[in-house]
Amino acid sequence: MEVYFDNSATTRCHPKVREIMNKLYDEDYGNPSSLHMMGVRAEVYLKEARKSLATLLKVNEKEIFFTSGGTESNNLAIIGTAMANKRSGNHLITTSIEHAAVLEPMKFLEEQGFRVTYLPVDEKGVVDLEALANALCGETILVSVMAVNNEIGTVEPLEEIARLIKEKCPQAYFHVDAIQGFGKFKFYPKRMGIDMLSVSGHKINGPKGVGFIYINEKVKIKPLILGGGQQKGMRSGTDNVPGVAGLKCAAELAYENFEEKQTYLYSLRNRMIAGLKEMDGVTVNGYDDDTAAPHIISVSFQNVRSEVLLHALEEKGIYVSAGSACSSNKPAPSRTLTNIHAPKEIIESTVRISFASINTAEEVDYCLETLKELVPVLQKYVRK
Amino acid sequence: MEVYFDNSATTRCHPKVREIMNKLYDEDYGNPSSLHMMGVRAEVYLKEARKSLATLLKVNEKEIFFTSGGTESNNLAIIGTAMANKRSGNHLITTSIEHAAVLEPMKFLEEQGFRVTYLPVDEKGVVDLEALANALCGETILVSVMAVNNEIGTVEPLEEIARLIKEKCPQAYFHVDAIQGFGKFKFYPKRMGIDMLSVSGHKINGPKGVGFIYINEKVKIKPLILGGGQQKGMRSGTDNVPGVAGLKCAAELAYENFEEKQTYLYSLRNRMIAGLKEMDGVTVNGYDDDTAAPHIISVSFQNVRSEVLLHALEEKGIYVSAGSACSSNKPAPSRTLTNIHAPKEIIESTVRISFASINTAEEVDYCLETLKELVPVLQKYVRK
Repeated sequence: MEVYFDNSATTRCHPKVREIMNKLYDEDYGNPSSLHMMGVRAEVYLKEARKSLATLLKVNEKEIFFTSGGTESNNLAIIGTAMANKRSGNHLITTSIEHAAVLEPMKFLEEQGFRVTYLPVDEKGVVDLEALANALCGETILVSVMAVNNEIGTVEPLEEIARLIKEKCPQAYFHVDAIQGFGKFKFYPKRMGIDMLSVSGHKINGPKGVGFIYINEKVKIKPLILGGGQQKGMRSGTDNVPGVAGLKCAAELAYENFEEKQTYLYSLRNRMIAGLKEMDGVTVNGYDDDTAAPHIISVSFQNVRSEVLLHALEEKGIYVSAGSACSSNKPAPSRTLTNIHAPKEIIESTVRISFASINTAEEVDYCLETLKELVPVLQKYVRK
Repeated sequence: MEVYFDNSATTRCHPKVREIMNKLYDEDYGNPSSLHMMGVRAEVYLKEARKSLATLLKVNEKEIFFTSGGTESNNLAIIGTAMANKRSGNHLITTSIEHAAVLEPMKFLEEQGFRVTYLPVDEKGVVDLEALANALCGETILVSVMAVNNEIGTVEPLEEIARLIKEKCPQAYFHVDAIQGFGKFKFYPKRMGIDMLSVSGHKINGPKGVGFIYINEKVKIKPLILGGGQQKGMRSGTDNVPGVAGLKCAAELAYENFEEKQTYLYSLRNRMIAGLKEMDGVTVNGYDDDTAAPHIISVSFQNVRSEVLLHALEEKGIYVSAGSACSSNKPAPSRTLTNIHAPKEIIESTVRISFASINTAEEVDYCLETLKELVPVLQKYVRK
């Protein structure tokens, strides 16, 4: 049995997504910037995608911009607004448990003379709202908080954060990295007070190398990638029409029977957590109930090192992650676990199990059986 | 008959390219940053692609970096080296006929306090080497010149340029935008004195949304997109494995029977030019012989406006370009034609015909017949 439980790292592309991409690579392969019918036909796909995604988020079409993925979306939101608004202030706020695609642009801006506040989180990974209230000041131009933590699945209180920003710092923009959240929760940026929202295609059974960002039309922002002036100058480069059409298809599929799939994912998660709790020396990091995202479980097995368990599971055909997998193989202690003050033993023995709605209860049961067989054996070999 | 002669705007994806991409989206869909077999399998594709492209260019694997396309490659080369070397000098040199993906980053750097020299070109679009020699100075950190002009197909004297740089300004880097040249000419950056070379996938029957850049290991450069540290920190973001594998496949296909295909493209070009010359009031811009690139013809039809002819041809199933098509529908006078001092009447009546090796002599003949039928009719309706 082969079980892919690393869906927060990346997902399998849905057959319908591949189908539309194939059509665009083989038949409607024109450049949307071309004036002839092949170009016009290609441009229709872009427009349809913009319209569809805008409808899902209840925003305007002109507020949707396509990028090469979640990382570029985050870079654009953060660096692009900082550069465009440096005359209004030089202070940015984020959390200590963001993805590197947020934290690294923040570090870059620090080198450029901006001041960045990294908000602490509680032991479940929830951002400290009091610290946010204290940090917001007249110099603050941007607050960036993730929707769902990629390592432990904690859901951040976005609407409270937006309210605090509007109350204390109405001039500051609110950016949300929704790369792990989109497709699992519904986001309505305008109602929720979110000015920018980053989304990635390959996390939702869509294509790699494509993503989008919602940017409220009032946001003052500078592009990162310059050239032919595509997407109203916000993102130059020949439009990746097949990728964009694939992204649209994946997003629409994610929104089909949305609530049923969310409930289904929670049922998988709860089934897994119930099974894990029958075992000795198991710790679920973050929330172990439906307060968390439906697709991520961070779990530690006492005295079993992450990589050892990962490879033992792999031999049984089960793929999970040690840490977040997004950090390019670098063996560094987990940022999120460190910041929720998990002890070293927990950090070193944590794996992430992450679901997609194509996973099944049988796969969960097989994983649990395998864990119950493997973990006690591995625990015997602990280095003391 | 449907004839796609706009291959310099974008190309149809080769079936083998789609095949490998489908496999990667459906089977080997792992994230190369994942430690398990699915990740390792995905990483192999990246390594193989890097190795293959490095072999084609006779460079080292570690000097190949994947991007979201040609525009990002150019932005990275120009902004990345300027930012990393501003202590060594603040002067950059380029030509007046570069693609917007080079000129716009240059303009951005001017706003940041850099000085940029835009070299003139002769009436065929060849860069003025004397002007280059005069411009090179102790402050020069980068020279960026395209390999093949995207509008008229002129081939720039890259090796002479490299020699001048090494002679007068050995500290300056030489970047080549090879987006229209790669796959049509062979590039050996190390032998040719090129430090960085930008390539796009979708111009060579590969996928959209992916490209690569060769960066000589000695080049001091800063990344543009920050995050998880993929590609040794030079380009963060989940690797677009299907896109990269598709790009590798397309590049290898382009290098299969390279000389035969180049000769074949020249035969199509020469057949078309010979036919065009039989017509009245026709001007081929740039070189009309094999001095130019084999796949691009810029041709003006006296008293026939570009868009009018473009749409008339389109009705007969023939797709060509008015100008370069890369400039996102913006109706601006052609930069290249303006800079080779073409008269206004020529500029306004120019179309670009661009071939791929899947085009045929029959298509050329059909296009010529159609032009010979349409152009005299359209010339009658000239607005005086």
